[in-house]
Amino acid sequence: MFLIESTHYSLERGSLAIIENRNPITVKEAISKIMKKVDKIQIEIIPLSEAAGRVLAEPVLAIHDVPPFNRSIYDGYAVRSVDTTGAASHSPIAFTVIDRIAAGDVSTALLGKNKAVRIMTGAELPKESDAVVMLEETVSSEDSFTIRKSFTQLENVSLKGEDAKKGDVIIEKGSHITPGVIAVLATFGYTHVKVAKRPVVGLLVTGSELLDVSTPLKPGKIRNSNGPMVTAQLKRLGVEPRWLGVLDDDIESCYLSVKQAAKDCDAVITTGGVSVGDFDYLPAVFERMGAEVLFNKVKMRPGSVTTVAHTDNGLLFGLSGNPSSSFVGFELFVRPALLAMIGSNKPYLPYNKAVLQEDLQANSFTQFIRAIYESSPTGVIVYPAGFNKSNSVTSIARGNSFIVLPGGTEGYKKGEIVDVLLLGLDEGGENWFIHE
Amino acid sequence: MFLIESTHYSLERGSLAIIENRNPITVKEAISKIMKKVDKIQIEIIPLSEAAGRVLAEPVLAIHDVPPFNRSIYDGYAVRSVDTTGAASHSPIAFTVIDRIAAGDVSTALLGKNKAVRIMTGAELPKESDAVVMLEETVSSEDSFTIRKSFTQLENVSLKGEDAKKGDVIIEKGSHITPGVIAVLATFGYTHVKVAKRPVVGLLVTGSELLDVSTPLKPGKIRNSNGPMVTAQLKRLGVEPRWLGVLDDDIESCYLSVKQAAKDCDAVITTGGVSVGDFDYLPAVFERMGAEVLFNKVKMRPGSVTTVAHTDNGLLFGLSGNPSSSFVGFELFVRPALLAMIGSNKPYLPYNKAVLQEDLQANSFTQFIRAIYESSPTGVIVYPAGFNKSNSVTSIARGNSFIVLPGGTEGYKKGEIVDVLLLGLDEGGENWFIHE
Repeated sequence: MFLIESTHYSLERGSLAIIENRNPITVKEAISKIMKKVDKIQIEIIPLSEAAGRVLAEPVLAIHDVPPFNRSIYDGYAVRSVDTTGAASHSPIAFTVIDRIAAGDVSTALLGKNKAVRIMTGAELPKESDAVVMLEETVSSEDSFTIRKSFTQLENVSLKGEDAKKGDVIIEKGSHITPGVIAVLATFGYTHVKVAKRPVVGLLVTGSELLDVSTPLKPGKIRNSNGPMVTAQLKRLGVEPRWLGVLDDDIESCYLSVKQAAKDCDAVITTGGVSVGDFDYLPAVFERMGAEVLFNKVKMRPGSVTTVAHTDNGLLFGLSGNPSSSFVGFELFVRPALLAMIGSNKPYLPYNKAVLQEDLQANSFTQFIRAIYESSPTGVIVYPAGFNKSNSVTSIARGNSFIVLPGGTEGYKKGEIVDVLLLGLDEGGENWFIHE
Repeated sequence: MFLIESTHYSLERGSLAIIENRNPITVKEAISKIMKKVDKIQIEIIPLSEAAGRVLAEPVLAIHDVPPFNRSIYDGYAVRSVDTTGAASHSPIAFTVIDRIAAGDVSTALLGKNKAVRIMTGAELPKESDAVVMLEETVSSEDSFTIRKSFTQLENVSLKGEDAKKGDVIIEKGSHITPGVIAVLATFGYTHVKVAKRPVVGLLVTGSELLDVSTPLKPGKIRNSNGPMVTAQLKRLGVEPRWLGVLDDDIESCYLSVKQAAKDCDAVITTGGVSVGDFDYLPAVFERMGAEVLFNKVKMRPGSVTTVAHTDNGLLFGLSGNPSSSFVGFELFVRPALLAMIGSNKPYLPYNKAVLQEDLQANSFTQFIRAIYESSPTGVIVYPAGFNKSNSVTSIARGNSFIVLPGGTEGYKKGEIVDVLLLGLDEGGENWFIHE
């Protein structure tokens, strides 16, 4: 079981060299290095019905005023406000109904003195009218009604262009297409939308200890949870990964797979093989590919050995193989890169503060503690989702956020306010707010 | 254009009767009435690869301990801690490496005094060993190394079962299947998962004024934005709606469509036709169907005329036709009902507090102001997303949250803390925290 030294890569010496060369950088620096290397993905035009969840590659302009005409806010009667002057409980004013319009219809009736047109919510006001009397404010009979108060000009009227003027930028390029954006696109008749293509992301996991999910456990082995997990993390961003399989800890097959994936994909994610062990080949693979290593050590727990490299074809994310490390590495590094690739202008994890519910010890590195962030009657609270070690799989399952605990501090006490990063939201922050 | 009075339903009288009968209730009461009528959807068993985003219909139990064996946290050497006693800078202790194991392999080597086994992160500790010496803490040559500090029992060892014990409930029934839950399911070999079926939701929009998205505008007409918008809101919950089309304001076709939809679907959503206008047929349709109207007026803006009814087949959501009313009505009422239907134990919109960035006026009803909720270096801030009227479509496009402004208050000033409901998150709150 001893190593054969005949490969061109001396593992023992290689590992030691890597240990010596690893200069940890802050998470902020690491993210910044990645973001500088992001290339934008090509644009495509898709039907509106498929656009939800994508990112706008063009601003949405108001093609016309919204509303496109003066419209009634309520069901009632369109009148000339001047005719209502002086109406009061003791001196009601009577109106005759000369026409009725539903939403979508227009009335060409000409309003004379004390004439009214029955109008529905959303309908266009007849030319001469400038106010709407709510149905509830009248005493009505078949073709007439009385009012007991006066109405001001434009009362209960939604003015042409008050929501948006023709030519206004309604939604900026780089926005996520939420249901509300869909509503605006529909309003302006956008049957098709320009969006960034979905990135092609290759995913492979390394580790001779990994069994398929359907395989019974064997001594020393564990099931591959990173593959399905990262797949789900990618899906949450709308990306269906190109699954490249589980690789044994073998430098040759690693090299060939990663090299091919880098050619075929916009980004490649690997898990495992980035540590300093004898079977951690990824650093050597990246080197052999001629990839530029952006960093191979980050001042963070878990995931300090996360290694990110870059070739002309795109980014290579070497996530650490422990489930929590892999999970955190994805959310901190892969997520913003992919979102920036598709042009999102809010690619960073959403940031908040919350009240800590238990004492937490600090570490020399910044900790990203998988946590439960929860509404309470007094605001948001946050507490660790469980066992806080890099190989904990239960904590990532229960958590919906990370508590960020800066390195080298005294730790935090229950009741203190801590920084929190939220998971599971499409759109995040415009900036990275964590300072280390 | 006057109404023909020969239909069996006298509209003018009908409308007046409805006005008189509408007793507004609070949002909290309205939600509570709906939630009492929710029937759980049937269960299905799906492959793990399709489970992301669904809701667990069974708890996830630890099928075995996690980790399943004592494993090394680091790359290094497995030793007997007793052999390290007394090691120090001035008196290093030397060890001989008698075997090497990679993750996934096991070593059967028997450790004698000052013997060690080279071990990788994640690998099972050899029987006799009880500590791991980190590679970085050694001075190594080919088959031996020295240490300059002692190691305690179980140092750098991840203990069998420390993350989870066999039989533990790891994830509760009713949890949303996040990427972290996927990791746990994979860890325990769940190739298939029990989840609630996706509900069948019928969607139809009413309004003679509505044009299809692809149609040029005509006088008095607007494009149907509610159909695409509510479709996207449903998709955000993982539900592909059954699209039943745009209906003219005609009681007969409304009745037939809604009646059929109620039979075929677990829930039916309509937009428009719930107000008090002559063409607002939905209340009459619900009555004719023999549906129990849970409420037809809510103390909220926008969307006060939202009407929810119930038949033996399921819930009928009559959302108001204005885009903002429809949007808010969906998030407040439809969303929790659908999530409860599929068994989610966190069906309510996530609640938070944030610092208001501009003055806001109160109304007699509780306002749900479409707002932008944003990270800032000092925590989260919130401000209105734009024009705050029920027919505003731009505000729903820009917003990612609702500011909740209780009715009958003085209003709020810039800098004050306000209640916020967050949009776009799968999993919400266990409770509804807004009190009115």
